[in-house]
Amino acid sequence: TTSLFLCISPGRSRAEDGGMMDDIVTEKQAEESHRQDSANLLVFIALLTLTILTIWLFKHRRFRFLHETGLAMIYGLLVGVVLRYGIHVPRDINNMTLSCLVNASPATLLVNVSGKFYEYTLKGEISANEISEVQDNEMLRKVTFDPEVFFNILLPPIIFHAGYSLKRRHFFRNLGSILAYAFMGTVISCFVIGMIMYGCVMLMKEVGQLAGEFFFTDCLFFGAIVSATDPVTVLAIFNELQVDADLYALLFGESVLNDAVAIVLSSSIVAYQPAGDNSHTFEATAMLKSFGVFLGVFSGSFALGVATGIVTALISSDFTKLRDFPLLETALFFLMSWSTFLLAEACGFTGVVAVLFCGITQAHYTYNNLSPESQDRTKQLFELLNFLAENFIFSYMGLTLFSFQYHVFNPMFIIGAFLAVFLGRAANIYPLSLLLNFGRRNKIGSNFQHVMMFSGLRGAMTFALSIRDTATYARQMMFSTTLLIVFFTVWVCGGGTTQMLSCMRIRVGVDSDQDNSVSTLDGTERRTKHESAWPFRLWYNFDHNYLKPILTHSGPPLTATLPACCGPLARCLTSPQAYEGQLRDDDSDLILNDGDISLTYGDVTVSADASGARASRGLGPLCGVTSDEALDRELAFGEQELVIRGTRLVLPMDDSEGPLAPALPPPPSGLDLRRHRE
Amino acid sequence: TTSLFLCISPGRSRAEDGGMMDDIVTEKQAEESHRQDSANLLVFIALLTLTILTIWLFKHRRFRFLHETGLAMIYGLLVGVVLRYGIHVPRDINNMTLSCLVNASPATLLVNVSGKFYEYTLKGEISANEISEVQDNEMLRKVTFDPEVFFNILLPPIIFHAGYSLKRRHFFRNLGSILAYAFMGTVISCFVIGMIMYGCVMLMKEVGQLAGEFFFTDCLFFGAIVSATDPVTVLAIFNELQVDADLYALLFGESVLNDAVAIVLSSSIVAYQPAGDNSHTFEATAMLKSFGVFLGVFSGSFALGVATGIVTALISSDFTKLRDFPLLETALFFLMSWSTFLLAEACGFTGVVAVLFCGITQAHYTYNNLSPESQDRTKQLFELLNFLAENFIFSYMGLTLFSFQYHVFNPMFIIGAFLAVFLGRAANIYPLSLLLNFGRRNKIGSNFQHVMMFSGLRGAMTFALSIRDTATYARQMMFSTTLLIVFFTVWVCGGGTTQMLSCMRIRVGVDSDQDNSVSTLDGTERRTKHESAWPFRLWYNFDHNYLKPILTHSGPPLTATLPACCGPLARCLTSPQAYEGQLRDDDSDLILNDGDISLTYGDVTVSADASGARASRGLGPLCGVTSDEALDRELAFGEQELVIRGTRLVLPMDDSEGPLAPALPPPPSGLDLRRHRE
Repeated sequence: TTSLFLCISPGRSRAEDGGMMDDIVTEKQAEESHRQDSANLLVFIALLTLTILTIWLFKHRRFRFLHETGLAMIYGLLVGVVLRYGIHVPRDINNMTLSCLVNASPATLLVNVSGKFYEYTLKGEISANEISEVQDNEMLRKVTFDPEVFFNILLPPIIFHAGYSLKRRHFFRNLGSILAYAFMGTVISCFVIGMIMYGCVMLMKEVGQLAGEFFFTDCLFFGAIVSATDPVTVLAIFNELQVDADLYALLFGESVLNDAVAIVLSSSIVAYQPAGDNSHTFEATAMLKSFGVFLGVFSGSFALGVATGIVTALISSDFTKLRDFPLLETALFFLMSWSTFLLAEACGFTGVVAVLFCGITQAHYTYNNLSPESQDRTKQLFELLNFLAENFIFSYMGLTLFSFQYHVFNPMFIIGAFLAVFLGRAANIYPLSLLLNFGRRNKIGSNFQHVMMFSGLRGAMTFALSIRDTATYARQMMFSTTLLIVFFTVWVCGGGTTQMLSCMRIRVGVDSDQDNSVSTLDGTERRTKHESAWPFRLWYNFDHNYLKPILTHSGPPLTATLPACCGPLARCLTSPQAYEGQLRDDDSDLILNDGDISLTYGDVTVSADASGARASRGLGPLCGVTSDEALDRELAFGEQELVIRGTRLVLPMDDSEGPLAPALPPPPSGLDLRRHRE
Repeated sequence: TTSLFLCISPGRSRAEDGGMMDDIVTEKQAEESHRQDSANLLVFIALLTLTILTIWLFKHRRFRFLHETGLAMIYGLLVGVVLRYGIHVPRDINNMTLSCLVNASPATLLVNVSGKFYEYTLKGEISANEISEVQDNEMLRKVTFDPEVFFNILLPPIIFHAGYSLKRRHFFRNLGSILAYAFMGTVISCFVIGMIMYGCVMLMKEVGQLAGEFFFTDCLFFGAIVSATDPVTVLAIFNELQVDADLYALLFGESVLNDAVAIVLSSSIVAYQPAGDNSHTFEATAMLKSFGVFLGVFSGSFALGVATGIVTALISSDFTKLRDFPLLETALFFLMSWSTFLLAEACGFTGVVAVLFCGITQAHYTYNNLSPESQDRTKQLFELLNFLAENFIFSYMGLTLFSFQYHVFNPMFIIGAFLAVFLGRAANIYPLSLLLNFGRRNKIGSNFQHVMMFSGLRGAMTFALSIRDTATYARQMMFSTTLLIVFFTVWVCGGGTTQMLSCMRIRVGVDSDQDNSVSTLDGTERRTKHESAWPFRLWYNFDHNYLKPILTHSGPPLTATLPACCGPLARCLTSPQAYEGQLRDDDSDLILNDGDISLTYGDVTVSADASGARASRGLGPLCGVTSDEALDRELAFGEQELVIRGTRLVLPMDDSEGPLAPALPPPPSGLDLRRHRE
């Protein structure tokens, strides 16, 4: 065997009854520890219950200055104060800590106690000077979770819910801008904050305020973690007030993708720092390596998330009878979404990012295949999980301010960080908006920009990233500062959202479902509605003509969108499952609509020109291109000439409005990618 | 400080680079271990997904010989075979096991590795001869869960769902018989099995087949754990076939309460064995102590479960506006139910038992206070959790047959156990049915008895109880035997249910909602429908007149049921929240119904005589008793005279049938405690 048996001679033995320590003591200890754990979890549940009751009171009284997350933080804070100063649990004599001096730290340790073997598992490293403190604050230690709990249990449902509840119509309409803000903006913000903080740290070193090491990579890491804006608080208020859907989509899309970018960015920065190398100098190869890691991890996670989403869509579409058993369907949906996370983690990608794209894919394809009951069930399930996880994280955040024992509050660093966060956000929003407005037909107004600037709250992701590693002095200072930034933005920016909106004259009370018709009537609003960047149109075209028919059996049949020469292939891909199968058992609205469509398809083509004015009737170009060629050719047509076939056929996606809409969409609403029933 | 620092001198050091083992290795190890864990969880998720797809296929083809749980076991079995014989993961060199010889086994161990401290937590004891095996079968160890996972994570949702989905009308109607089967029956079965097994063990000792110690308390413990019948498999089939509702209620109620009795019984038997005392002789004081433990734990858990259920009902009824926010309501419901479990565990009671009674209370009171959306949400949520947990346990069961490394299959013991289980079940059902039939008006027919005998499947609870402790030879033999009993009963008895039902001429296709009207028309069936034992009627009376009005605001107002002299008290208890509050904001069906009731109440009283024939109109006895006195007085009235006031007022509970039912219930259905929309 490979095990090492070490002889340990006790240095100072207090327990003379070593031989008497038998099963019963161990069992009692385990039982006692289990009871303690239950009691500690109860504290959190009581906190959540209290939060829920207070939220109810707030909602009931229409009190909007404090969002539920802010409230959860306050309660957490109070409990933290009580635990810190009110309760002092002396360390149990049975829980005394032995210390072995060995030359390795294996994952599993066997301890031989007078002939009996006990198995121990590695929990982690603790610094030497913490040992005495650790032992004194038993209660505080007990309410401290392993940071990985956040990444493996609490964040996934939150992020999945964000993807699954995306208002897809407006999201995809503003896709270009959202991607710009999320990718370029986060990178800009990360580097601006990193640079400012490096200056600040240098200054601190000058005046002798820095008690430990703080490298440039640490600054960049800090920049990455505080660049993740939170989609929760502000958007809940936006949703309640029914703020302009495009502003909502911009902010929501940005902050959701943001999280994914920030998490991958921070891990790339850690990878930049060569293992064991403490020089922390700039190196081109390490930089390239980091960039490679970023691209690899991001695209890998993206691909995995989309892949499992598509597999789920295929499973629930191929065996269409699965919709007869909503419980099985919901369970399958849940398991597949969860397996995305595990699969990504097992492959070394980032589970949270994979789960986000899985959520978006599920919403876009699988959702349409589910039975109405499962649609409700899955929505409600993830809504609940999201709600619980979110409030838990925010109350834990409040608790941590007092329960975390290694805070390093450095006034200079804190002031520098607040400034850096402000400037980083400004350097993200304003220049990018300026650039984007060159390309956008519906400009992002300055009031929108101010609101986006103001709404850059930091929340769960920033917290989870900063608590993940608090071993070094630099990380501890970052964590304490991050906590303050989160508190400030959630309470001040979150609380002031309503005022900000009215101050900036953002229109509220807009029903995003009615959005198009409203804008049609109101000429002045028209131009803000019809942005459709070419990547979006390109993607939409491909999605609508090929992916949707294969995955969800809505939209035009493949036999029509694929050229005549590909007829056999198209029939092979669609007919057996999609059309013959569905026409035979017409037991759902969606399928009936599909039936209608396939009869009327082919005589309506609408030019998807962004100005939306040129609707041309007539036979569409149905012939002569394969799927890939079609894409290329349509690209070659140029932006204005791009013809989207069968725009009308998108309507069946929207089953929330009952009867089919008029045969042609209202002229100005070129691309009527209606959001599915939310 | 209280810690002991021990100096350990390495006995045989293989890793010469002790000084070089720094953070990076530990971090890599942790990452690697995390990836491994993800991959292992993926195996289970893949198993569940496969099970779901196959279940779908079975349901689709209406194949009923193998239930989903049996299927999950088969898949688990196959994966177990593959893991056992197909894959051999050599132990990772980084995961080598060090062994310290110290004189205590604390919960936390600090290891000093060249100046760095690592924290280890106690996982449990392993026997000395397992050490080498443990290290060789890395993969098998990885897929082995801590048995406490079953008690703390998987069982609670299953048991809660059982309580929450109780068909209450038939359950309460047969309450007396169910309690008799569950309490007396389980105790009888436990002792009969224990006795037979003791005989068997004695015989084995005679012929030299026993390789270790096996005490009488072990035999009793075995009796307790295999007396827990499983409510899952058979009842799923019953539900599908819509078997006679009374048979269903008897079996379901018995097997649900059964679990609670068995879990408390087994822990009492463990408590009987005095700590450290290996004499294992019979002692009257220890026996009394066990009995005390049983009563204390059971009643404590019961009281706790009911208490949190009632608190939840009060929260959702007092603040009736909570129903405007279904998400908050559902979250609150979920948290309160979960906190029952934690609270019970923290108090030293049995969480699983508390959760069962909490579920029943929630179904009886809280459910009526919830908004329709929350009613659906909570049902579906727990249905999903139950489904996932159940299938997980059953596939894990299959897996364990090959992955568990300390099986002791003893043919004599196994044969003895099968015989004992059969006889124990027979000694439970037949004598008790005979006794009960003396008191029951609708006799339990012999075909019912045979079906109950046949349907005593063993499942999740038996498995969880037997895997909890597999340290000794006796426990290992029990575990292996239990596994075989579960396999046999689930596959053979579960698979043969349909045949058994047709063989015994049990009527199927009965809609339990329509049950009463059916029986009214069909004179021969009538007498099986109206069993209402006096404890049931007593309880129903109290519940209907006092608890329901306070907790759910359905039924008669307290001002009417309480005597005139208690008027102020009654008004104080009801009016503010229940009636004035509700009449003011009439925004829900229930409240409107309540309004109607308070106007029409008082002119209808129906004698709740079990024969159901005497419906007397007129002013009910509205005066002169306090809540407690009323109970006593009504008891004194005698069984036939017991008057249930305002039976009609139960109808608003049932909102599934739209308009209010006729002013008087059909005469023969004396107690129309209609089951709420399932």
